[in-house]
Amino acid sequence: MNLSHLDESGAARMVDVSEKPVSARTATASGRVLLSEEAVAVLRSGDVPKGDALGVARIAGIMGAKRTPDLVPLCHPIALHGVKVELTVVDSGVDIVARVKTADKTGVEMEALTAVTVAALGLIDMIKAVDPAAVITDVRVEEKTGGKTGVWTRP
Amino acid sequence: MNLSHLDESGAARMVDVSEKPVSARTATASGRVLLSEEAVAVLRSGDVPKGDALGVARIAGIMGAKRTPDLVPLCHPIALHGVKVELTVVDSGVDIVARVKTADKTGVEMEALTAVTVAALGLIDMIKAVDPAAVITDVRVEEKTGGKTGVWTRP
Amino acid sequence: MNLSHLDESGAARMVDVSEKPVSARTATASGRVLLSEEAVAVLRSGDVPKGDALGVARIAGIMGAKRTPDLVPLCHPIALHGVKVELTVVDSGVDIVARVKTADKTGVEMEALTAVTVAALGLIDMIKAVDPAAVITDVRVEEKTGGKTGVWTRP
Amino acid sequence: MNLSHLDESGAARMVDVSEKPVSARTATASGRVLLSEEAVAVLRSGDVPKGDALGVARIAGIMGAKRTPDLVPLCHPIALHGVKVELTVVDSGVDIVARVKTADKTGVEMEALTAVTVAALGLIDMIKAVDPAAVITDVRVEEKTGGKTGVWTRP
Amino acid sequence: MNLSHLDESGAARMVDVSEKPVSARTATASGRVLLSEEAVAVLRSGDVPKGDALGVARIAGIMGAKRTPDLVPLCHPIALHGVKVELTVVDSGVDIVARVKTADKTGVEMEALTAVTVAALGLIDMIKAVDPAAVITDVRVEEKTGGKTGVWTRP
Amino acid sequence: MNLSHLDESGAARMVDVSEKPVSARTATASGRVLLSEEAVAVLRSGDVPKGDALGVARIAGIMGAKRTPDLVPLCHPIALHGVKVELTVVDSGVDIVARVKTADKTGVEMEALTAVTVAALGLIDMIKAVDPAAVITDVRVEEKTGGKTGVWTRP
Repeated sequence: MNLSHLDESGAARMVDVSEKPVSARTATASGRVLLSEEAVAVLRSGDVPKGDALGVARIAGIMGAKRTPDLVPLCHPIALHGVKVELTVVDSGVDIVARVKTADKTGVEMEALTAVTVAALGLIDMIKAVDPAAVITDVRVEEKTGGKTGVWTRP
Repeated sequence: MNLSHLDESGAARMVDVSEKPVSARTATASGRVLLSEEAVAVLRSGDVPKGDALGVARIAGIMGAKRTPDLVPLCHPIALHGVKVELTVVDSGVDIVARVKTADKTGVEMEALTAVTVAALGLIDMIKAVDPAAVITDVRVEEKTGGKTGVWTRP
Repeated sequence: MNLSHLDESGAARMVDVSEKPVSARTATASGRVLLSEEAVAVLRSGDVPKGDALGVARIAGIMGAKRTPDLVPLCHPIALHGVKVELTVVDSGVDIVARVKTADKTGVEMEALTAVTVAALGLIDMIKAVDPAAVITDVRVEEKTGGKTGVWTRP
Repeated sequence: MNLSHLDESGAARMVDVSEKPVSARTATASGRVLLSEEAVAVLRSGDVPKGDALGVARIAGIMGAKRTPDLVPLCHPIALHGVKVELTVVDSGVDIVARVKTADKTGVEMEALTAVTVAALGLIDMIKAVDPAAVITDVRVEEKTGGKTGVWTRP
Repeated sequence: MNLSHLDESGAARMVDVSEKPVSARTATASGRVLLSEEAVAVLRSGDVPKGDALGVARIAGIMGAKRTPDLVPLCHPIALHGVKVELTVVDSGVDIVARVKTADKTGVEMEALTAVTVAALGLIDMIKAVDPAAVITDVRVEEKTGGKTGVWTRP
Repeated sequence: MNLSHLDESGAARMVDVSEKPVSARTATASGRVLLSEEAVAVLRSGDVPKGDALGVARIAGIMGAKRTPDLVPLCHPIALHGVKVELTVVDSGVDIVARVKTADKTGVEMEALTAVTVAALGLIDMIKAVDPAAVITDVRVEEKTGGKTGVWTRP
């Protein structure tokens, strides 16, 4: 069992995908930011501009997906054909779901995970004056389609 | 109760810190990447180049801290005077701790959180061929010092 | 009369500001995106999510200010202590005003102009399906304070 | 009438273009930097290194086109197959024209507009010691070809 | 004899490659960092963490390859399908070889050269406390395949 | 003898400089691009736009200095107060000298070396159609002033 990003000698590399076919690919990732009751109340309150707080986080997530190859050292720079980031206020905080599409030689699960985590960072930055103890949790790939392995769904 | 990054009308802004004094500041954040037993065994095995896998994640985290103002929309671009990212293989995965120092007008908790999450993304990218179901969890600020509020420790 | 970014031989350089004192500085720039009546109606309509369209442009402008030294070849990389970008729907389109603050050795008028133009680009991208003929116009510095020259107001 | 970058609920997204065919596409945008008579004289004078001033602006514009997806939040990252930026000194200032080519799933009008505006910012930065009152004006798409809509020419 | 990045009038441009076919392309570049005997001994010593020093340089090189269009003004932004960077400690310092693969309309020799030079910069930064006099030398393309010109090997 | 960017356990870190005083610092680095006689003739010829070729490389070097912390993994992000890049055509190619100034807690020799190497990459990209065998050589720090160690001159 070995790691594809390391060669036989253990040195890191950007793995060669030149022989892989271009195929339509999607990935969905999710995560949650746990917040205090007070912070959830602020986001839900009609008195405060909750739209903009969630809106900033959403934009951060979409732009974050585009920065994936800058952030993840061995990620291939690839085209992105669509990115959606949804944020939903729930009793314990904010749920985040990111869906990424492409047609390229490698999957986009890292892009989807990056979108979720950067959206979470953007949200925490907006709410940190109210809740300095926010926690990012349960960030994970939910589903991935396309490529040689076809559909993968979280077990 | 309002959000400092939004003005009275609810519009996002980079909040004005020009009147705040420069002070020595630190922030520590932590998080965990949950991995399968098999992935943990790979990282622990003497047969595989675990050093490089964790090393790539560490570098990703340190470089990620420097990209914080590019990723978090309303973060101030600030100087960073020191960044440490530690990764420890544990039975359930890999624990990550990031410590960031500066002397500037705003705190560095977003930089510490960004270091942890980007290190986690870097690690997942390294290990995803072995464990496509990795989960980033419990990413949070542990402690923060400096500035007007002084020492804050997670309750 | 010569250009400060060019040396005696005419070669471009990032001009040496190391002898200049740090001082509080501000700059305000403005501009307008001219839009069709239909596009203005869309932005004003309660039926459409105008908030998010303007919100995306506002975030683009704030983040754009931070990218100024990446975009303008000879700009110094400097700290930014506050950025505000206001967008107002008017009969002929959208007015944009950006205010930038710092305490550093050089002025922030390029940051303010960059904030206005990137906000304008972000807005045009949002509205271009409705109005492909949008025009960015009248982008200019309105006022600048701090530094050796003190207050400069557009004549 | 709605905005393609917003979904039914009004949330921003990077619109899904995965079903669109790759086609050869071009876009031409233009704009002008209005300058004082003195600044125009400096740029025209044989005594000063006007070549470098315009040259810096030209490079800024070309590099700016490549940064479009970093700047415009919902822009797709796409390949660019050619970028030309022309600057012409005229009596009232400097005219800028940018031509961008690609073969991809989305148009390049935002890249052309970004090239013009970043070239304009680069020029203003070069000339601002002589003319602090420069104005960017009339930045707009002139023509666009390729894709489903075919040729679009400014009415 | 003229330079392809300059038009007839001598103005810089990103040359139009839209008519060129996509083809599999590779480039190999090499270089050397000359170091003091003491620095070589440190890198070779079992007492010091030489793995991480070379590992950091290797990651820098791989990530540097991805930043080529941000650094080299007229380079086309292109897909990269594989990047390998090898560092070997030799008596006079460290040899660096970078291999880059793609399938696109332009060659990847600039990406390979950038990988070598950025790896060299990363290495020097790691070793500079021991050897402030390190020298980067002999950075050059060794071989290039694909495209209209086919195989090119350094004479 | 150990490497300052590695802690006791050999893990990479951005070394803590928070206790170091801010001081005026400069660094000068140099290097050479070896070119064919034909390429040198092209750069020297009055018939070709040599100004723009060298001008593009100069801008690449200045902008490259600003990207140092993005490229060199453990470099601190610092202010730059002045950057000059000089290119001189000589019989064997082009000599490059970069001078960087700052007032900060760490030296700027990496910024000077990065300016030289990125200028060299920019030049090679401009001339590669004429000379695909260009070589970057002798890139090194010449002098460094400021900080605890004071003046360092290449022995």
